[in-house]
Amino acid sequence: MFPRSIQKLIDLFSKFPTVGPRTAARFVFYLTKLPKEKFDELLNSLKDLRQSIKVCSSCFNPFDPSESLGKAEEILCPICRNNSRDKTLFCIVEKETDLIAIEKTKKYKGLYFILGGTISGLKKNDKEKIRIEELKQRVRNGNFQEVIIATNPTVEGETTALYIEREIKPFNVKITRLGQGLPAGGELEYADEETLSSALEGRK
Amino acid sequence: MFPRSIQKLIDLFSKFPTVGPRTAARFVFYLTKLPKEKFDELLNSLKDLRQSIKVCSSCFNPFDPSESLGKAEEILCPICRNNSRDKTLFCIVEKETDLIAIEKTKKYKGLYFILGGTISGLKKNDKEKIRIEELKQRVRNGNFQEVIIATNPTVEGETTALYIEREIKPFNVKITRLGQGLPAGGELEYADEETLSSALEGRK
Amino acid sequence: MFPRSIQKLIDLFSKFPTVGPRTAARFVFYLTKLPKEKFDELLNSLKDLRQSIKVCSSCFNPFDPSESLGKAEEILCPICRNNSRDKTLFCIVEKETDLIAIEKTKKYKGLYFILGGTISGLKKNDKEKIRIEELKQRVRNGNFQEVIIATNPTVEGETTALYIEREIKPFNVKITRLGQGLPAGGELEYADEETLSSALEGRK
Amino acid sequence: MFPRSIQKLIDLFSKFPTVGPRTAARFVFYLTKLPKEKFDELLNSLKDLRQSIKVCSSCFNPFDPSESLGKAEEILCPICRNNSRDKTLFCIVEKETDLIAIEKTKKYKGLYFILGGTISGLKKNDKEKIRIEELKQRVRNGNFQEVIIATNPTVEGETTALYIEREIKPFNVKITRLGQGLPAGGELEYADEETLSSALEGRK
Repeated sequence: MFPRSIQKLIDLFSKFPTVGPRTAARFVFYLTKLPKEKFDELLNSLKDLRQSIKVCSSCFNPFDPSESLGKAEEILCPICRNNSRDKTLFCIVEKETDLIAIEKTKKYKGLYFILGGTISGLKKNDKEKIRIEELKQRVRNGNFQEVIIATNPTVEGETTALYIEREIKPFNVKITRLGQGLPAGGELEYADEETLSSALEGRK
Repeated sequence: MFPRSIQKLIDLFSKFPTVGPRTAARFVFYLTKLPKEKFDELLNSLKDLRQSIKVCSSCFNPFDPSESLGKAEEILCPICRNNSRDKTLFCIVEKETDLIAIEKTKKYKGLYFILGGTISGLKKNDKEKIRIEELKQRVRNGNFQEVIIATNPTVEGETTALYIEREIKPFNVKITRLGQGLPAGGELEYADEETLSSALEGRK
Repeated sequence: MFPRSIQKLIDLFSKFPTVGPRTAARFVFYLTKLPKEKFDELLNSLKDLRQSIKVCSSCFNPFDPSESLGKAEEILCPICRNNSRDKTLFCIVEKETDLIAIEKTKKYKGLYFILGGTISGLKKNDKEKIRIEELKQRVRNGNFQEVIIATNPTVEGETTALYIEREIKPFNVKITRLGQGLPAGGELEYADEETLSSALEGRK
Repeated sequence: MFPRSIQKLIDLFSKFPTVGPRTAARFVFYLTKLPKEKFDELLNSLKDLRQSIKVCSSCFNPFDPSESLGKAEEILCPICRNNSRDKTLFCIVEKETDLIAIEKTKKYKGLYFILGGTISGLKKNDKEKIRIEELKQRVRNGNFQEVIIATNPTVEGETTALYIEREIKPFNVKITRLGQGLPAGGELEYADEETLSSALEGRK
């Protein structure tokens, strides 16, 4: 039904997170109507992303080395490089957007580690989906007083947390999890029993 | 548009919690189609509720005195009367269904107090909406080691909690709140900053 | 967990349309807090409904005979009795609230028939769920120029419409269905193919 | 908070239809993790779209001229060029995805015209948002027996339809609108009065 080049791009956009074929089609029609200079701006920004963004060798957060005083050979992101961050606190998150969510609270001043996903089981296949070896090396070499496993309190997040906990226990560091409880705006009446139990246990 | 007796009942059902005029109309049409014996069963159950249910003089939870070994003069509900409950723990909730939600967790063994609502401000008008005098008397006369203010973490619930805290502070008892944090199944990425801050502070 | 008389009423309210056990519990707690005169008002309104409401012998819509000039022996509802209604137009609906929805449009001036439900198949069991014999008698004896089958365009509504059509075809009356198409506020892009096909065919 | 090149791309993706800053951020992190060959595939597909896609000079639908027997100078899309389409039927839609929705029904065999938007008022500013002059020229020069104004039955769509109707009336062609009514799966009880009125008027 669509011209080949439109269909190709619909297929590629359909792989973007949260995007289905219908939304992907709207993206492509949006692009076909874009003035040439706007289209080129998008193309150039994509190329720029590819060229300028590196992944931090310590926490795996994407960053732009050229923004750090022109040191293109920089291998650490601004957070890992920041001397005012607390290097004894270490927070493990599933993905980049979780790191950002925590940074936005302005309540955390330690370091991060981006796992790159979750596991849903303990098969070899699963374990390869996350940066477990890199994580173990980081915890072994770090000088952490507390490691916060900040995976989501979902089934996959919990499975991943249990696996991580088992793997880093040998390094003898204090391991914590994010507090569970009622979210802001929540209601006791509609809370599940696990959440309400956590809220009771975590009272203060 | 409706016969008078139908309209009257629609008006009365519309005052039930969560019910609007459209649902109220469906209730009434449901009733008009009910066989006589089913209708009478409903009428009798309503009368029965009226006659058998008292409100506990201590926690204000509705209960049936006749269920307590035939002592119709009983003024305490089964929870308040239960000697195996911890009488040093006292939990203040907004309404009956919140008490039930907490009971279902099987994690709380203390006593309760049903406020009967929330306040949205500190005007005299507002304060009369909740059982604040009864609460103060209960805390003054009780022998509590901890009072848990378990109002919802909503705006009204928080306002109410602050007001209660101020009012019972003079009785020199430890006051706690339910733990806030990520609910089971929640995701960091979509959590508001307040919830995520609470989750960070409440880590363990 | 609940006193017997509360549990009994929760069970009865749970049978009301759209009501589950949690909402039913809220209804009962609402009732336990109602002042005596309000509670009695509800009880009396229920009794009044039972005594004053009859079901129209022609269209099966509930009505109050005493509202028709004191003629308690009246067997027709105000619509069936209204001489200014068009007695050659006949509209078959699933339930009372559908009749009301049509009346509210003020675009229909004919008579009605309330089926009392839908069928999902053609088993004997299914057919007994709706007033098919009463309908056939009504169409046979009526003097209708058009019979509108106004069941919902859902799977059950369509099955019911096909069955009705087959049953009343022998009476040689013009049979119509409500127009299908895009609803007000709808969007082509999100319409299913059936709706959009109907909208194309029904263009004018 | 983000590196400059990431922020830039978040800003550009945020202008895509239905995309907000949070989703845009997920898109960018998705891209930073894409293997080089997949990233290049996206870049090349975008360039390809730019080079291969023209907008049809007749209906304004995007198409690929090279797909029509290698005639790169082709100015008509496959639909406009298709001799088996009914050239006396002309359907005006708001946007490309509406054309596709209609094509999917396989119930329409005429030509199209893509307006490129809707107007919300009759100010000069508004009128410039849609291809009204191109449309008038097309209707003047076409040999149409019926023009279907297939804008959405939303407030903007209706305003646009009224404006178009006024502008093409002088060309003395039969003008129709899509049929309104209950959508497939809809329920009378929850339909708005306008939709239900349309369903009654459009019965057949």
